[in-house]
Amino acid sequence: MKLGVTRMIPQTINILGRTPAVLSSLLKDAPAELITSNEGPDTWSPFDIIGHLIHGETTDWIPRTRMILNYGESRTFEPFDRFAQFEMSKGKSINNLLQEFATLRHQSLDALKEMKITTDQLSLRGTHPSLGSVTLRELLSTWVAHDLSHIAQAVRVMCRQYTDDVGPWKEFLPILSH
Amino acid sequence: MKLGVTRMIPQTINILGRTPAVLSSLLKDAPAELITSNEGPDTWSPFDIIGHLIHGETTDWIPRTRMILNYGESRTFEPFDRFAQFEMSKGKSINNLLQEFATLRHQSLDALKEMKITTDQLSLRGTHPSLGSVTLRELLSTWVAHDLSHIAQAVRVMCRQYTDDVGPWKEFLPILSH
Repeated sequence: MKLGVTRMIPQTINILGRTPAVLSSLLKDAPAELITSNEGPDTWSPFDIIGHLIHGETTDWIPRTRMILNYGESRTFEPFDRFAQFEMSKGKSINNLLQEFATLRHQSLDALKEMKITTDQLSLRGTHPSLGSVTLRELLSTWVAHDLSHIAQAVRVMCRQYTDDVGPWKEFLPILSH
Repeated sequence: MKLGVTRMIPQTINILGRTPAVLSSLLKDAPAELITSNEGPDTWSPFDIIGHLIHGETTDWIPRTRMILNYGESRTFEPFDRFAQFEMSKGKSINNLLQEFATLRHQSLDALKEMKITTDQLSLRGTHPSLGSVTLRELLSTWVAHDLSHIAQAVRVMCRQYTDDVGPWKEFLPILSH
């Protein structure tokens, strides 16, 4: 996006701060078929996606930011468990998960603000377990893109539940075909 | 989705009623780069997408529902102008458009509720200018899928503005690659 680095942190906080309300507007008290249906074997439902975002708040974004600030490239990030949510979300309702995510995201952004990251610090580097050397700026941009990617995914999964229902209109809705 | 027809109308209203809040949470007062950037020539920005949804409220969904209920297949729907928003949104802010869409959607759903559509009426047919014979049930399902499709599109377009910023993480974010 070629954002000036001086605007990087406020804009990151701005977009990340929206995600709980976006997901809550979309999913809170929504019909069960739309919350728990996925796109087929080994794909995720909106319910699974919220669990994945929750896991990221506790284990990924802020912990990795701290690791870059405190240790630079000398320590490797913990690998991110992309399947943790299947165990951790068991027995919870979508409304439970949405509330839990909102609370954790609020805490994450408070922590990010308290770090008062400077322009210079955005160029600091850390070590990703499979990608190697990455910058703090790339980590924070990825946090935003990861949110948006999973919001788009949740909406797409919901949309695809209507594939048969739309009849001949399917040809005008490319999201239903690939 | 194989929804019982008795739940079709309440569920349609439930999902359609969420869209203004989802879009407002995502876009109200958001950074200009994210609102007006698109995916390249002849693609739409989030700003363009909201204009398209506004146009649908005034010319497409409720007018076509009424046409099926009043005239069946004997009158052909007006073709939907997919480019009307470029003229109609000129000079407006994203916040203007979000408010306009929310007002129109509220009116559309009031109109839909007043029609008190019965299970039998969901099988009534109308004539689409290019798709031919369609049912009311297909029209209403398409309204929902069309909303979700364009929410997913708006989020994807925002996400893709981060393609360069995420550095090596791009390979973990398939939304950025196709």
